[in-house]
Amino acid sequence: MRVIGVDPGLRQLGWGVIEADGNRLRHVANGHCCSDAALPLARRLQQIFRALAEVIAAHAPEAAAIEQTFVNRDGQGTLKLGQARGVAMLALAEAGLMPAEYAPNTVKKTVVGSGHAAKGQIAHMVSHHFPGAKLAGPDAADALAIAICHAHHSGPGAARIAAALRAAG
Amino acid sequence: MRVIGVDPGLRQLGWGVIEADGNRLRHVANGHCCSDAALPLARRLQQIFRALAEVIAAHAPEAAAIEQTFVNRDGQGTLKLGQARGVAMLALAEAGLMPAEYAPNTVKKTVVGSGHAAKGQIAHMVSHHFPGAKLAGPDAADALAIAICHAHHSGPGAARIAAALRAAG
Repeated sequence: MRVIGVDPGLRQLGWGVIEADGNRLRHVANGHCCSDAALPLARRLQQIFRALAEVIAAHAPEAAAIEQTFVNRDGQGTLKLGQARGVAMLALAEAGLMPAEYAPNTVKKTVVGSGHAAKGQIAHMVSHHFPGAKLAGPDAADALAIAICHAHHSGPGAARIAAALRAAG
Repeated sequence: MRVIGVDPGLRQLGWGVIEADGNRLRHVANGHCCSDAALPLARRLQQIFRALAEVIAAHAPEAAAIEQTFVNRDGQGTLKLGQARGVAMLALAEAGLMPAEYAPNTVKKTVVGSGHAAKGQIAHMVSHHFPGAKLAGPDAADALAIAICHAHHSGPGAARIAAALRAAG
């Protein structure tokens, strides 16, 4: 099963594609979809939408997962992130993918073993899982972690992947 | 100039299309794009996106305006609205329209004459401007008000529309 993970953002959206085969996880690709902050909001959302649609077309994932957005007191920040998350979910839906949603703590707990892991620890564990893979940045590492989380929680190999992750951690 | 106004929402998005010709405003159509609350979020966003894209294709507006979202302490509500607003802006951008954004108070001030008008007053004034038009509901009335606001603030007839609105109010 090929899984795409998405870490939404307006300036920069992270994505990561993995292949889950039995209890083996293989890195396929990862990267960022960026928008130009100098452009109007509608144009930026279009940039994110089109870039993610191209990634989906290029890597043909069969399943998708996205991080549940942490809502804080910064209303303007929540609104911006919500708008970017909306077009990311739409790009997945338009490709026939219904993204599963995972809380940040679930992703951290699955990949690092603790729900309160720092961003650096996630990138470290993702690198550990995929030794040869070049990570485009922290958002792309997060996106790969979300894809790993989904492979762990779904599909026929889920129990074996969970055991392999425990053994690796 | 044909203008579409959009009042974003996840459950129900209001839209209204008007024609601004010199200082004359004419009602073209108004309505709602709804999503099914029983479906997953990505599918609901797709319903909103596709329904709005159909409205745009049917009425061929040359300009667009959308309400600036009022951010309150309800983070989850802001996130939901943000996601719906994101796909609405994308639908406009994909049709080649770059939506102007207006604060709710600006819309109210333009249409009712006061920035603190109640929702009922907006529908009342919109009905007053377009005596024959059947309003689909408060969200559609708001969307028409946003379109009126944009006609008032832009285009060659802006000054004359402003004068006509003052005379009507």
